[in-house]
Amino acid sequence: MSEPSDSQTNPDLDSLTGELDQQHVFHSWSAQGPLTPFVIASGRGSRVWDHAGNSYLDFSSQLVNVNIGHQHPAVIGAIREQASLLATVAPATANLARGEAAKRVAALAPDGFKKVFFTNGGADANENAIRMARQFTGRDTVLSTYRSYHGNTGAAVVATGDWRRIPNEFARGHVHFFGPYLYRSEFWADSPEQESERALRHLERVIQSEGPSSIAAILLESIPGTAGVLVPPPGYLAGVRALADRYGIMLIFDEVMAGFGRSGRWFAFDGHDVVPDLITFAKGVNSGYVPTGGVIISDPIAHFFDDRVFPGGLTYSGHPLAMASIVAALDAMASEGIVENAASVGRDHIAPALAALFNDHPIIGEVRGEGVFWALELVADRSTREPVSAAVMGRIKKELLARGLLPFLADNRIHVVPPCVVTPEEVAEAAAIYDEVLSLDLLS
Amino acid sequence: MSEPSDSQTNPDLDSLTGELDQQHVFHSWSAQGPLTPFVIASGRGSRVWDHAGNSYLDFSSQLVNVNIGHQHPAVIGAIREQASLLATVAPATANLARGEAAKRVAALAPDGFKKVFFTNGGADANENAIRMARQFTGRDTVLSTYRSYHGNTGAAVVATGDWRRIPNEFARGHVHFFGPYLYRSEFWADSPEQESERALRHLERVIQSEGPSSIAAILLESIPGTAGVLVPPPGYLAGVRALADRYGIMLIFDEVMAGFGRSGRWFAFDGHDVVPDLITFAKGVNSGYVPTGGVIISDPIAHFFDDRVFPGGLTYSGHPLAMASIVAALDAMASEGIVENAASVGRDHIAPALAALFNDHPIIGEVRGEGVFWALELVADRSTREPVSAAVMGRIKKELLARGLLPFLADNRIHVVPPCVVTPEEVAEAAAIYDEVLSLDLLS
Repeated sequence: MSEPSDSQTNPDLDSLTGELDQQHVFHSWSAQGPLTPFVIASGRGSRVWDHAGNSYLDFSSQLVNVNIGHQHPAVIGAIREQASLLATVAPATANLARGEAAKRVAALAPDGFKKVFFTNGGADANENAIRMARQFTGRDTVLSTYRSYHGNTGAAVVATGDWRRIPNEFARGHVHFFGPYLYRSEFWADSPEQESERALRHLERVIQSEGPSSIAAILLESIPGTAGVLVPPPGYLAGVRALADRYGIMLIFDEVMAGFGRSGRWFAFDGHDVVPDLITFAKGVNSGYVPTGGVIISDPIAHFFDDRVFPGGLTYSGHPLAMASIVAALDAMASEGIVENAASVGRDHIAPALAALFNDHPIIGEVRGEGVFWALELVADRSTREPVSAAVMGRIKKELLARGLLPFLADNRIHVVPPCVVTPEEVAEAAAIYDEVLSLDLLS
Repeated sequence: MSEPSDSQTNPDLDSLTGELDQQHVFHSWSAQGPLTPFVIASGRGSRVWDHAGNSYLDFSSQLVNVNIGHQHPAVIGAIREQASLLATVAPATANLARGEAAKRVAALAPDGFKKVFFTNGGADANENAIRMARQFTGRDTVLSTYRSYHGNTGAAVVATGDWRRIPNEFARGHVHFFGPYLYRSEFWADSPEQESERALRHLERVIQSEGPSSIAAILLESIPGTAGVLVPPPGYLAGVRALADRYGIMLIFDEVMAGFGRSGRWFAFDGHDVVPDLITFAKGVNSGYVPTGGVIISDPIAHFFDDRVFPGGLTYSGHPLAMASIVAALDAMASEGIVENAASVGRDHIAPALAALFNDHPIIGEVRGEGVFWALELVADRSTREPVSAAVMGRIKKELLARGLLPFLADNRIHVVPPCVVTPEEVAEAAAIYDEVLSLDLLS
């Protein structure tokens, strides 16, 4: 798990990887024509490298999921050990690793959450949370925001509000609303408090207009991630909880991207003084070392199914290899203070570094985030807030990679999303690279 | 990976596992009340054992997925090695293990299939195949059979025809028809040829009645599995292909359960002289050692997306750990003749053993299957073909477990579905246990 020695590096493998990829691999969310994907051979902590031994600072955490960093030895060790003992087992059986993982995940949730249903990832976590809410309430409709991403499967992708929903609208019972986003307010608000208040008023009007008795659930990313790291303004989440209570609606927090340290807290909703009915997770729970996800279920919903068949399931639910990696990842994150690191590095290093970039670069329209979950919104003009073009973003990606930083870009934004183990030194190194690239003449 | 020695066994872990499971684990397709799931601590080949060291012959292959047997050393070794190198990577990057896995999977498909889209399991494989067919044809409707299971997510569970669809009908564009099933024919047929011919006539009438120009895909398990191992009669699959061609409909074969050796062939449709447009897989491709699945894409559909964005994707698409396990599993299955073993043990040992059971036990109404994919349909009366009750099936499960055989039961059937590596001796041992249990006074 150390960096590759010269004897291990082999640049030929980079071209072989590229060739096989072009010939045989069909990629997500892409046209497949002339793809030249970035080759990754290995990684450690906040860095990855290719087969030639070139190293890159990973400020993407891949898909914002490698919270514990690459190749954490305790998690790798646990996967290797469980693989030697028992790789797979059917979900109807019982397995020690699964019980231990469920116990640990449930323990991180608020009081009143004891049971966990494991899935293969975030999409089917949301699928099953929606299913539970519909069964429990006997209602159909699921409300979610236009600025959201909830996964790629049938119901999850229609709950998703962004463009990825449009070619996939083959599920019924989904209605979308606008969440708070002060920088581009849908509500003509000019303060966080006003944005919160008006967004809540909007949500209540949608509930009333759809008919409260038809609505099973409100599904919300605690911090909308891919949509732009839209940290909710004060009072918003608690206000949504109050609306859900008023109308008998289940509240589902999607913590797939925001959870397990990303925000500097175990869950992004922690500290908002609000408790949902269902919590969905994936990514950070084991940093994606083995595909997994799940739903943490509040007691009333769990007990509802004590004597009713839950109509959902999957072959790899509670897969031993995934479960062992969850146990090891959560134990290591706790014992090594990795969530605390995300909070303090975020507060003391990332926030000031990004503030300095904002001061120096008018192309940055807004900096927002917390923990290791930040977005730089890039604009052609600070006064009009016009987003920079896709061509500018393409140039930025190329220039960042050329300087050894693997970025996460979405629309007109750079998401600054390193692993939770990122060090102050790595933040300084990345900030210098961002600074250098944003100093280029990008807009001409 | 050897059987546990006395020093490793610890019966206390069985009760701890049971307790944690009851407190914290929410199970698939079940009421959650007083579950007492079977505890599995480890396994090897066709056997599993609990923490007390009790061993069981696994004639379920868990969920009909451990085709290569438990804890195959080459696959375990590959997982351990890849874990040490690089556990996870984003789908937009390129990775050597992914290219090698895609190459091997595509090579097993007919000519004209070069690209593979990897998913987390069978459900999202079907989701994405449906998505591809809809995009490619510009049509909406998906036809699938009432006797089918295609997965648990939004669209897959509505494509599913069995009872699990009913509480989950929140997707549009799905229509169901009857497939061939001579033992309980929907078509008053009395020969396999007549069943095939009449089932095709029925399918064509459904296509015509729905309007051919609305139909994107026909989605079929090559051998419907959970529905009862319904091996299609001669000419049926080729007839479906002809109908699909006549009406411009994409043909998707779901090989999630039937594929990768289960039928005694790499794909269950091999030897039926028919080529689909899309092939979905999971389970047997790596025996579920790491969660994965995917779609093998015929060239015209793959090329359609060369310059169009494919509107689907997922974080763990082409996960390195899963990919390494596919490479190792397929290489071992090829070099060790594991598919051939499934064919020969099926033909020379399972088929005769089940025929002998049929002769001796009137409770068996029909024996059907091939390879290591068989069903005993149990009836209260051979002439009326009335299925035995759930209580009888519960008794059978208990008695089989008590004799050291872990069975797969569905409705009124025992599915005889050992790993593809099962030996003649293990078949004889299992046959003796089935014989003993079926000799009990079960119907009184």
